[in-house]
Amino acid sequence: VQRRPVIAIVGSGTAAEAAVSNAHELGRLIAEQGWVLITGGRDAGVMKAANAGAKQAKESLTIGILPDASTEVSPGVDVAIVTGIGEARNNIIVLSADVVVASGVEDAGTTSEVALALKNGRPVILLGTTDAARQFFSDIGGDDVHIAVSPMQAIQLVSNCLKVRRKEEE
Amino acid sequence: VQRRPVIAIVGSGTAAEAAVSNAHELGRLIAEQGWVLITGGRDAGVMKAANAGAKQAKESLTIGILPDASTEVSPGVDVAIVTGIGEARNNIIVLSADVVVASGVEDAGTTSEVALALKNGRPVILLGTTDAARQFFSDIGGDDVHIAVSPMQAIQLVSNCLKVRRKEEE
Amino acid sequence: VQRRPVIAIVGSGTAAEAAVSNAHELGRLIAEQGWVLITGGRDAGVMKAANAGAKQAKESLTIGILPDASTEVSPGVDVAIVTGIGEARNNIIVLSADVVVASGVEDAGTTSEVALALKNGRPVILLGTTDAARQFFSDIGGDDVHIAVSPMQAIQLVSNCLKVRRKEEE
Amino acid sequence: VQRRPVIAIVGSGTAAEAAVSNAHELGRLIAEQGWVLITGGRDAGVMKAANAGAKQAKESLTIGILPDASTEVSPGVDVAIVTGIGEARNNIIVLSADVVVASGVEDAGTTSEVALALKNGRPVILLGTTDAARQFFSDIGGDDVHIAVSPMQAIQLVSNCLKVRRKEEE
Repeated sequence: VQRRPVIAIVGSGTAAEAAVSNAHELGRLIAEQGWVLITGGRDAGVMKAANAGAKQAKESLTIGILPDASTEVSPGVDVAIVTGIGEARNNIIVLSADVVVASGVEDAGTTSEVALALKNGRPVILLGTTDAARQFFSDIGGDDVHIAVSPMQAIQLVSNCLKVRRKEEE
Repeated sequence: VQRRPVIAIVGSGTAAEAAVSNAHELGRLIAEQGWVLITGGRDAGVMKAANAGAKQAKESLTIGILPDASTEVSPGVDVAIVTGIGEARNNIIVLSADVVVASGVEDAGTTSEVALALKNGRPVILLGTTDAARQFFSDIGGDDVHIAVSPMQAIQLVSNCLKVRRKEEE
Repeated sequence: VQRRPVIAIVGSGTAAEAAVSNAHELGRLIAEQGWVLITGGRDAGVMKAANAGAKQAKESLTIGILPDASTEVSPGVDVAIVTGIGEARNNIIVLSADVVVASGVEDAGTTSEVALALKNGRPVILLGTTDAARQFFSDIGGDDVHIAVSPMQAIQLVSNCLKVRRKEEE
Repeated sequence: VQRRPVIAIVGSGTAAEAAVSNAHELGRLIAEQGWVLITGGRDAGVMKAANAGAKQAKESLTIGILPDASTEVSPGVDVAIVTGIGEARNNIIVLSADVVVASGVEDAGTTSEVALALKNGRPVILLGTTDAARQFFSDIGGDDVHIAVSPMQAIQLVSNCLKVRRKEEE
């Protein structure tokens, strides 16, 4: 069985404008590739924008991994998974993704998502981060950390990572 | 936003033939209603049959909530959520569902799923259980426990429960 | 290294008087044996009574496995583990225990704890349950389910189970 | 009720010698203050050293929050909490601690622990980290991030943080 690839977009619920705008573009491009989009599902910042972007593409499928039953869900989420485990749900987002794209690493929640992705051996694409974040995660993550300068380049890097994963599974 | 209802089918990975056959029928009927099917995702017993049944319907969407990254996934699962939290993932299955249908309650795992559903206020439909299970869960769960004698009747009960939930949300 | 045995007492936060009184006695007896007591940690019902009982014994050590940071903690809990995973914390209680004692099985939460204990191969002692509960769990759990008629007999059964576990580990 | 403060030491299971040696000293000093030590519990690196250090003090109490039932436990752990939730257990370590001390931030697991601590509003003391880590976490965590140059200074900072927390609770 060949399931559709699952790509996570992570980022802050209170992200700066550039990160939100990038997330919207990333969401659309991911959905246009036929990949499933997975996010933290909240109706805020990067999550909201990524899901809204994805829903502009036909055949898009968006899964939101919510911290709790009381979380306000992004309208662009097709299926809401209610984990009830709070911030620990970040580990589920990255475990369920083939590749993780961070649109900015501006807060502690996103940092934990990138770190857990690397801990679990998932490739991470960093888009629009500070120099300090790039430096730190390159030290920690080595070859699993990739730097993109645009949403389009991020998609290209995701595509390369998927090819590598597919080869490893064969 | 009106998301598609999400219905869980729970049951044993080593279920008896009747429970497996009922799960297949339940999966198909749930998907034909346009509802999203959620299960524990494993390639065994009730889970496998429910997903296989659902995939016989056009427009079906099946989500598998897996205990761990090493779990063998049912071929009928469209999107695999890798929780990494083992049996605690049973709480995520029921929290994410509007209604939970148990096709047999033959083992401890299914018992925990029914119990966690009731703990979280989710209606539960029991199909094909022993007298002891029916008696026990009716004692514990009161009005949230419904008994079905066929997959078709289970679907009717799910439909009623969804109407009640929708009214409560208004 | 030989760590002190860890015994869980599970039961309802709104338990009937007999179950609460039994839990107090069980807590005291467990602590007097030098065993660590583990509970769901809440300041209610069986949990509160078990911890209060344990603290009557010198050298007692009580661990509370809390669902969330906002949970009111039983005063008899020495160390509070804040899981942040809600009801899924029931799986942590039973995984961390060598043996699980249920003082009544009166609600869905306790049912999930007994079920998860059996799913994970932990022996369970049932004290003061209904006939329906005894019948149902004996069907599901087989040899791992033991019936006690008094706190003192429950302790005797725990002691036997610990001997068996120790032999298996050798 | 005034429970003993709980202090977490986090760090890599494959840490460099300086981080391991600091963790041993930190563990001893924490236990000598009468504080409960909480760690990830594994028999490796910073975790093993911290627990070994703590057990040199009388009245020490060490809790290990294990990822899974198969984890090899540090001999210095008094009570092992088996979470069964893998890396998501990092969130439980920090939620259960009043203050978190990182002895080096050398890998992705430790990064996630520091990030989750900050996400949950726990003060973090960084000891023996790279310039890149200090820069990055100061950007992300603001006033909740404190830098220590020795185990003794770390303990002083923990003590200050505990006083602030106690005042906030009053």
